[in-house]
Amino acid sequence: MEGIRLIEVKEEILSDNKEAANLLRDRLAESRTYLVNLMASPGSGKTSLILRTLEALSGKLRMGVIEADIDSMVDSEKVAAQGVPTVQIRTGGFCHVDASMVAKGIDALDLSALDCVVVENVGNLVCPAEVDTGALKNVMILSVPEGDDKPLKYPLIFTVCDALIVNKVDYLGLSDFDMNALKQRVRNLNPRMHIFEVSCKTGQGIDAWAGWLHREVTGFTGR
Amino acid sequence: MEGIRLIEVKEEILSDNKEAANLLRDRLAESRTYLVNLMASPGSGKTSLILRTLEALSGKLRMGVIEADIDSMVDSEKVAAQGVPTVQIRTGGFCHVDASMVAKGIDALDLSALDCVVVENVGNLVCPAEVDTGALKNVMILSVPEGDDKPLKYPLIFTVCDALIVNKVDYLGLSDFDMNALKQRVRNLNPRMHIFEVSCKTGQGIDAWAGWLHREVTGFTGR
Repeated sequence: MEGIRLIEVKEEILSDNKEAANLLRDRLAESRTYLVNLMASPGSGKTSLILRTLEALSGKLRMGVIEADIDSMVDSEKVAAQGVPTVQIRTGGFCHVDASMVAKGIDALDLSALDCVVVENVGNLVCPAEVDTGALKNVMILSVPEGDDKPLKYPLIFTVCDALIVNKVDYLGLSDFDMNALKQRVRNLNPRMHIFEVSCKTGQGIDAWAGWLHREVTGFTGR
Repeated sequence: MEGIRLIEVKEEILSDNKEAANLLRDRLAESRTYLVNLMASPGSGKTSLILRTLEALSGKLRMGVIEADIDSMVDSEKVAAQGVPTVQIRTGGFCHVDASMVAKGIDALDLSALDCVVVENVGNLVCPAEVDTGALKNVMILSVPEGDDKPLKYPLIFTVCDALIVNKVDYLGLSDFDMNALKQRVRNLNPRMHIFEVSCKTGQGIDAWAGWLHREVTGFTGR
């Protein structure tokens, strides 16, 4: 048998991406704009959380949003209706955004007028977790109906995130979701995770989350 | 509402890829090496067809194989066991190979010693059809158990291919697969498609397919 040459495409792609991500972070540091990458499964409430966050931080931070979606512009229309600068990245089938895609989104924004940009990543718990977007911090949402076992099934995303928003806590009474079990599983993977229990429907817990983000951003921008 | 800037990531990626594909074709023309891209669903018999084709063309053409797979090396081991130069591209989750990945595979082969290289693309009828690999011709396999309605569900792949191999015809008696309906549907999308009815299990139809490929390759290489 002749030898088989093995080419690992993914590692090369990820290493090129790491470089692009670091360049983007340098650029954001220069303009003192905080970039946060928001990841979650479809339907877990990413857009609702962004809308609640914009409302909570209105007048306190100058916010911008980059919406990534495989094909539609529904989410970006809701966000732009709040009057914040919004860019839509249509990935056309790609399951995540990478640093060069986010950099194109950043190109389309006036950074000097923004304290914080939120990237709403493509809805999926696998691919986005593997790819550095150039964000300073990663935040994920897990909604109660998805179940408390997700850290067991998708450990990577829980290790790369700085904050976890447990959304739809208004469903807690209706399900067998065990919040303590979830927290234990998350802490086993990532002892430093900030965990916020939230309901985007009722507004419960939004202030705690928005307060954390506000401190994060002002700590970074110095403004 | 502020205006939303829309960024179409996919079009830019595909246009960069087109350039890489054309460069690769130039390079293959120089060494007079024919490159064929084989696409199909998982389990339709891509590796079996390659093994049958290597056997049929043994001593007639100098063949090489690039095996693309999301994660495993099972297929490339079977192919390399036939004594032909084999490169494995592990895409690590990507659902297709693009021209720059195939070019890396080509880099790992001695083109001066090869008349024809077959790329076994990742098993999937959607993504691979959209991405030019740099191959001279695209060939797809549809196996009888997949059904005669696939041209209705996945029209793009039928339009970008030059040859269709209907594999597992030994299953025809066991199913309601209508070969005439399939051919009519394929011709509606692509009147110039070469269609071969094949069974990799029994060997039926392999000579007709291998004969076509042999004429294609020698017509290109002039050897």
